[in-house]
Amino acid sequence: MSNILPALGDILEQRKHAEADSSYVASLYAKGLNKILEKVGEEATEAILAAKDAEHSGDNQDLIYETADLWFHSLVALAHLGERPEAVLQELARRFNISGLDEKAARQTD
Amino acid sequence: MSNILPALGDILEQRKHAEADSSYVASLYAKGLNKILEKVGEEATEAILAAKDAEHSGDNQDLIYETADLWFHSLVALAHLGERPEAVLQELARRFNISGLDEKAARQTD
Amino acid sequence: MSNILPALGDILEQRKHAEADSSYVASLYAKGLNKILEKVGEEATEAILAAKDAEHSGDNQDLIYETADLWFHSLVALAHLGERPEAVLQELARRFNISGLDEKAARQTD
Amino acid sequence: MSNILPALGDILEQRKHAEADSSYVASLYAKGLNKILEKVGEEATEAILAAKDAEHSGDNQDLIYETADLWFHSLVALAHLGERPEAVLQELARRFNISGLDEKAARQTD
Repeated sequence: MSNILPALGDILEQRKHAEADSSYVASLYAKGLNKILEKVGEEATEAILAAKDAEHSGDNQDLIYETADLWFHSLVALAHLGERPEAVLQELARRFNISGLDEKAARQTD
Repeated sequence: MSNILPALGDILEQRKHAEADSSYVASLYAKGLNKILEKVGEEATEAILAAKDAEHSGDNQDLIYETADLWFHSLVALAHLGERPEAVLQELARRFNISGLDEKAARQTD
Repeated sequence: MSNILPALGDILEQRKHAEADSSYVASLYAKGLNKILEKVGEEATEAILAAKDAEHSGDNQDLIYETADLWFHSLVALAHLGERPEAVLQELARRFNISGLDEKAARQTD
Repeated sequence: MSNILPALGDILEQRKHAEADSSYVASLYAKGLNKILEKVGEEATEAILAAKDAEHSGDNQDLIYETADLWFHSLVALAHLGERPEAVLQELARRFNISGLDEKAARQTD
């Protein structure tokens, strides 16, 4: 499960050099920050609706999918503003006192 | 950077057995899904505002902080509905063809 | 300025008897509550972004437009659930002690 | 039902001259645009959750209340940026071809 968000960060970085019509992410960058943030707002709403539906149905599949959409578009916003996923992960690790030791060990296996 | 979200998933799981007044997460669980989802909506708005301010100021610190808040509360919603962070990471890996090999290697170092 | 929201409530009521492909509102009703609420979330985000841009540009035109979109889609949600705009206006009047006398006078001119 | 939003617009205008600790609206103005827009985002989320709950319960009371909160805070944002409720009502009237005649008649009774 490790390294998925950093790998996604690499992909989002590469897309900055792609033509706007060559990928969804490149087209979002070209449309600019407001369009990216509209997607963050949309996906937050869809995740909230999916959670309410999951509460009744007991099926979390849409919620997982919409949460992935939400995180993804918030990573596009970060990338557009020059920031990597690791900055958010470090902030979460700091708050919850999650050790960097596992992280170090994991990187040595790369 | 690896393993931070799975470790946070463990913490969120443990908080389910805590008294409501013993931690912020336990109090959110006790208040129920609507209150958790209100926080997701709030933090999405705060992340959007922080991104707009970062666009003008060039300072991403608040954006990183608010994005951490957004991901965190979406993880609380997932946990409340019985789901782990790994489900979202796997969905993102699947979409972007990010290999699970690094992940396997990383887990062997745990 | 009076009577605009009640008149819009009448229009939203009439659209319930229209074919789904005959109007935007009829198509929203046919898609169901989640799609209507997704629009409420989208328009809230767009209104927030327009307000941030207005803060810098001094031009409120987009903000007025996006706020109209937000109110409109929240009226569609209300209509879909069997409620009229007057219910929200009455709630606002009640909170702010706004007299119903003007209202009565205005209705007599209809 | 007429004149409620314009009357609310007058109240929001008057609150600009009030001390920050004398009313909720005055305290929002003093905290600034971001805090006002956070409230718009919060209330949009709460209205969406209330609509989902109304779908299951058949009770619209919370939805009416939360929609009033949403409209109210969007009016505070407009007022903070120098705009009146009438601008949004006119935009809605224009889109739906709602006549201004009733409006004129209503004003003559004031």
